[in-house]
Amino acid sequence: MPSRILISDPTLRDGSHAIKHQLKKEDIALYSKLAEEAQVPILEIGHGNGLGASSLQLGTSLISDIEMIEESKKHLKNTKLGIHVIPGFATIKRDLNSAIDAGVDVIRVASHCTEADITKRHIEYARNREKEVYGVLMMSHMAPASILVEEALKMKSYGAQGIIIMDSAGAYLPANVREKIRTLVHSLNMPIGFHAHNNLGMAIANSIAAVEEGAVIVDATIRGFGAGAGNAQLEILVAVLQQMGYETDVDLYKLLDAADIVEKSFVTIPYVTSSSIVSGMAGVFSGFSKPVERIAKEYNLDPKDIFFELGKRRVVAGQEDLILEVAVNLSQLR
Amino acid sequence: MPSRILISDPTLRDGSHAIKHQLKKEDIALYSKLAEEAQVPILEIGHGNGLGASSLQLGTSLISDIEMIEESKKHLKNTKLGIHVIPGFATIKRDLNSAIDAGVDVIRVASHCTEADITKRHIEYARNREKEVYGVLMMSHMAPASILVEEALKMKSYGAQGIIIMDSAGAYLPANVREKIRTLVHSLNMPIGFHAHNNLGMAIANSIAAVEEGAVIVDATIRGFGAGAGNAQLEILVAVLQQMGYETDVDLYKLLDAADIVEKSFVTIPYVTSSSIVSGMAGVFSGFSKPVERIAKEYNLDPKDIFFELGKRRVVAGQEDLILEVAVNLSQLR
Repeated sequence: MPSRILISDPTLRDGSHAIKHQLKKEDIALYSKLAEEAQVPILEIGHGNGLGASSLQLGTSLISDIEMIEESKKHLKNTKLGIHVIPGFATIKRDLNSAIDAGVDVIRVASHCTEADITKRHIEYARNREKEVYGVLMMSHMAPASILVEEALKMKSYGAQGIIIMDSAGAYLPANVREKIRTLVHSLNMPIGFHAHNNLGMAIANSIAAVEEGAVIVDATIRGFGAGAGNAQLEILVAVLQQMGYETDVDLYKLLDAADIVEKSFVTIPYVTSSSIVSGMAGVFSGFSKPVERIAKEYNLDPKDIFFELGKRRVVAGQEDLILEVAVNLSQLR
Repeated sequence: MPSRILISDPTLRDGSHAIKHQLKKEDIALYSKLAEEAQVPILEIGHGNGLGASSLQLGTSLISDIEMIEESKKHLKNTKLGIHVIPGFATIKRDLNSAIDAGVDVIRVASHCTEADITKRHIEYARNREKEVYGVLMMSHMAPASILVEEALKMKSYGAQGIIIMDSAGAYLPANVREKIRTLVHSLNMPIGFHAHNNLGMAIANSIAAVEEGAVIVDATIRGFGAGAGNAQLEILVAVLQQMGYETDVDLYKLLDAADIVEKSFVTIPYVTSSSIVSGMAGVFSGFSKPVERIAKEYNLDPKDIFFELGKRRVVAGQEDLILEVAVNLSQLR
């Protein structure tokens, strides 16, 4: 059982979703200082959908990724600065290159769990720039463990130094996490990590289950600040890991105080809405909630029925057009 | 593995704590109707500390327990009405007798986990009145499984038809719950139940762990509405149980809609504060938070240090005087 867990904190990245990417410079300064003081090992920053994703469709950031990186970096000494990079949103020349120039230490290159091929050039580039590079498999509940191993092996072959699987839809129960992490840990000779969402109230339990199966990297945000039902709540995670005898390097007292400070500032506290539960059960990314509710109203349908049907069709972000098709079908069935 | 789980919903009892026992008649009417429609099997009602506990020290209820029972009962047909009874607060002649006359179906007689002796007369009385009667062991993290079995056997000998253990301080991790519930299920030939709090983010995971070990009764409240960090969130619990193949009789769609309705009405949504985490780690009832914070300020101490020291001294509700003693000691140590 590994005794040291590496905490990566995407408060200033996944949290962006919760406030429509309106993080201000002073928010970034405040939290970067607090994270440094609490000895958080990695702080992840940027638009909610990652580097270069600020756009009309996904939401425009108040300040650019590069400005965010520069502001945060001013306040960090021992805490490393990380970014989430989805090839397609983030180009190498325009985005990745500038982010590394601006001082980013950790590059996490992400794709849908069956699309690792698209991460090749970005991973290679970041490794060539001598950065710490991880591969991230999003919506990992949609692929069996054997496929996740195949995809992770691709990322490893490109140069990724560790693999993080994300429960982007908050769909996992602890037994699912155990099976996936156990298989990855046993099949890949490299650090494995887990990124939780709380749609089924399991963010902390799933993170702990991952650690018990050998995961050594865990993502968590202060007060759970993040997309939809929120992430694993960082202060709870550190407290529970400490109580179980794991080492995280984080100063728990300072982290608890930091949480009290930021909840009075820019951090909104997520909770598990009825819609979050349904999207977790259906395994659909919670970003679908608003259009689903709108279209359900229009067609006089229960949004839950639309969600479960979208789940059956295994939709992923970008396929929002299917909502209308599903609604039309469901209303014809009545 | 038992496939049917009995849900007992203390929204209108544990939730009282969250709003200083100010539940209004119309709140009770609204939620009783919604619980009946969603086929919630048992609805628990009354002052947060149970029948007869309304007082200056514990907080005065807006309307009496009997008025609450009568109001709720008007709207219930298939949903049973339950009460939490701590002997000492609840007398037999004044309180229990009137509550049964007012139409309560389920009586849960509770004591500190090592004090089952005090429940004898109340359990016997309720059984003589032909009610469904359970014994409840509060702060159950403070006693080893073997002692819980002894105490539960006492309650069984008095006539209790099932035993519920409460994680009153939100101190359990799933492995702790498994050990306790497994021992109780194997040692007692009767239904065992679990009541969670969310201080360590484990309310849902602990409830599921309890069920996996053979617990057949689980307490949960809408949106987690309850004391401190809140209870297990009822809609999530039912969703997860359903997904795992357990039967609860609850109509999930109606329950999710009910949650959306009451969060716009009287229900406040709990979250895990830094202070909740510390009280969970220390195993101290979260009701200590406010006086601890006040006294910490007075003595220029970190409230966390006071909490952990109170945890070492194994304090229970009613021993608030010790806070001052601990503060004086800690400030002398500096």
